[in-house]
Amino acid sequence: MSPSHHPLSYAIIGAGAVGGLYGGMLAKRGAEVHFLMHSGIDEVRQHGWRVESVAGDFRLPPESLHLHNDPRSMPNCDVTILAIKSTQNHLLGELLPAATGQDGVVLCLQNGLHPEADSVAIVGPGRVLGGCCFLCSNKVAPGQIRHLDYGRIVLGEFTAADQPPAGISDRLQRITDDLIAAGIDAVATGDLWLARWRKLMWNIPFNGLSVALDASTKQLIDTPESARLAAAIMGEVRDAAAACGRTLPTDAIEKTLDHTRQMVPYDSSMRLDYRAGREMELAGIFAAPLAAAEQAGATMPRVEMLHQQLGFLQAHRRHRK
Amino acid sequence: MSPSHHPLSYAIIGAGAVGGLYGGMLAKRGAEVHFLMHSGIDEVRQHGWRVESVAGDFRLPPESLHLHNDPRSMPNCDVTILAIKSTQNHLLGELLPAATGQDGVVLCLQNGLHPEADSVAIVGPGRVLGGCCFLCSNKVAPGQIRHLDYGRIVLGEFTAADQPPAGISDRLQRITDDLIAAGIDAVATGDLWLARWRKLMWNIPFNGLSVALDASTKQLIDTPESARLAAAIMGEVRDAAAACGRTLPTDAIEKTLDHTRQMVPYDSSMRLDYRAGREMELAGIFAAPLAAAEQAGATMPRVEMLHQQLGFLQAHRRHRK
Repeated sequence: MSPSHHPLSYAIIGAGAVGGLYGGMLAKRGAEVHFLMHSGIDEVRQHGWRVESVAGDFRLPPESLHLHNDPRSMPNCDVTILAIKSTQNHLLGELLPAATGQDGVVLCLQNGLHPEADSVAIVGPGRVLGGCCFLCSNKVAPGQIRHLDYGRIVLGEFTAADQPPAGISDRLQRITDDLIAAGIDAVATGDLWLARWRKLMWNIPFNGLSVALDASTKQLIDTPESARLAAAIMGEVRDAAAACGRTLPTDAIEKTLDHTRQMVPYDSSMRLDYRAGREMELAGIFAAPLAAAEQAGATMPRVEMLHQQLGFLQAHRRHRK
Repeated sequence: MSPSHHPLSYAIIGAGAVGGLYGGMLAKRGAEVHFLMHSGIDEVRQHGWRVESVAGDFRLPPESLHLHNDPRSMPNCDVTILAIKSTQNHLLGELLPAATGQDGVVLCLQNGLHPEADSVAIVGPGRVLGGCCFLCSNKVAPGQIRHLDYGRIVLGEFTAADQPPAGISDRLQRITDDLIAAGIDAVATGDLWLARWRKLMWNIPFNGLSVALDASTKQLIDTPESARLAAAIMGEVRDAAAACGRTLPTDAIEKTLDHTRQMVPYDSSMRLDYRAGREMELAGIFAAPLAAAEQAGATMPRVEMLHQQLGFLQAHRRHRK
C-alpha cells in the first residue's frame, strides 16, 4: 500500500450490486478507482455510472471513469475490492495479480464463511482482508445500481481458522477511514470470523429459504411457519459459531428477525442467481460452515437439510436448462 | 358384524384411489358393496366401474353396483371402509352413522399416525380398525381407477396410544381373509401403531419432499442430495417410533429406499393434493407424529422443518388461489 500521506487507489473486481455501489461511492469522492468489467463496458462508456440509492442518487460521467476489460491491463492498486460471486473464484489467478501487484491488498467482499482463503491462495498470506456487507442492492444494468436498503460493511483482517483474531491493524483502520470518508457505513472489526458467522445467521436462512420456498424475504418473515423455521436455523448457526469459538450476542436472532421485518421486500442474491440460471453460492454459504461445524463437533440438521434441498434444486434447474 | 357363516357386507366411504380400487375388487368377487359417492355418481351410473390395474384390468357394469349419494341412505354394513382424505374427517358425524349402524365396524384406510381416533369419536371405542395401504393408485375420473404399483394393506385393531397392542382378533382375521379372497394383498397385524410408523417412514419424506421440491418420487430417489435427505428423515422417524415404543426393523430405511427406487414414477397423494389446490394431510402425516415424538421426548428437526415448509406453501398456495 502507498505511504499513509498518499490517497489510496482502488481496483474493483466485479462491478455488480456490491462493487458497483462502493466503487462508485469511492470514485464520487475523488478516489482513483479502476473498474474491471466482464461485460457491459460499452454501455458504461456511453452512459457512465448511475446509482439510485437510499443514501442519495448520483451519476458519474463516462469520462471520469477508469474502465478496464482485461485483468492484465489493470494498474497496481493499493486496495483490490473483490466483489465477484464466490462461485467465480476459480478465475482469481487471472483476476488478482496485476491489480494487487507486489504490495496491494485484497479486500474480499464475498459471501461465505471464509471466501478470503481463495484469494490467499493467489496473493499469499498477510495481504487479504475481508468484509461482510449488510445491504440490499441489485445491479439492474451495466453500471446501473439500485441500492435499496442498509449498506454497512464490517471489515477485518483475515486470519486462518486456527489463529487468534488479528485485532485492528493500521492498514485496516486506514481503509475503513477512507471508506467512511466516501460516505460508506464502514466498521472495522478485530475478529472477522465473528462478523462472518454473524452475517451467515442471515444468509443461511434467508438466502436458502427464499430459493427452497420460492419466496421473498417479506413473505418468509410474514408467514409464521417460515419465520419460526428461520429462527430455528439461526439457532443452529449460533450454536455452531459458539462451537467454533465465536460467541454471537444473545439477542442476535431477535435482532436479525427485526431487521428482516423492517427490510424493504427484497429478492436475496441467491434467489436472483437461481432464477437467472446461475450457480448458487452453496459452497461458501452452506458447505463451508457445515464443514467447520462438523470439525468442531456441532451439528446443524436444518442447515444440512436446506443445503441438500438447494443441491437438488440446483441439479434439476441445470437439468431443465 | 354378521355371524361368521354369513358373507360380510361393505360400505365404501370415499370411492377414490384407495376405496375405489379395494371396493371394486370386493364387488368383483361378489361381495355386497355400497359405494357412497360425493360427486361423479352420474358418470358411474353410465359407465360403471373401470379399473386399470397392474393386477389385471376389470370393469363392473353399472347395474351390478350399489351407488349412493346421501350418507343417510346408506344401509347398515358389516365393514365401513373409510377412504376419504383425513382432511375431511370433520364430516365423519354425517358420513359414518348410517353405514356402521349399531354393530358395524370401521376400517380406516387413511394416512397419518392415528387417523382412527376421529372415527372412534363418532362410533365409539372397540369398533374401529385401521389399515396402512402401500400402493400407487390414482383416481383418473369418477369410477375410474388406475392402480400403478404395489397394493398391500396391513390392517389391525386400533388401540389408544397408552394401551398395549391388540393382537389379532377374530374379526380382524375374518376381514383380512375376506380381503385376501377378493385378491387383495391383505396382512393382519397385531400392532397397528407399528405399521403406522412403518408407513410414515415413507409418507413423511416422500410426500413432504415431493411438494417442497416439486418433484416426483423418481427424481427424489435418483438425485443424491434428496436421497440422502430422505434417508436422514427416515432415521428421525425410526428414532421417534422407538421413543414411542415401536421398534422398526434395522433394515427398514434401506428397504424403503429400495422399494422407492423400484417404484414406477409416481406423484405422491400430497403432491396431487397440492397441485389441485386441495388441503394437504399435514395434520395426520406431520403434526400427529411430531406431537407423539415430542411427548416421548424425541426430536425430529428435519421433519419439523419439512412441516413448516409445507405450512408456508399451503398458506401461499391458498393465498394465490
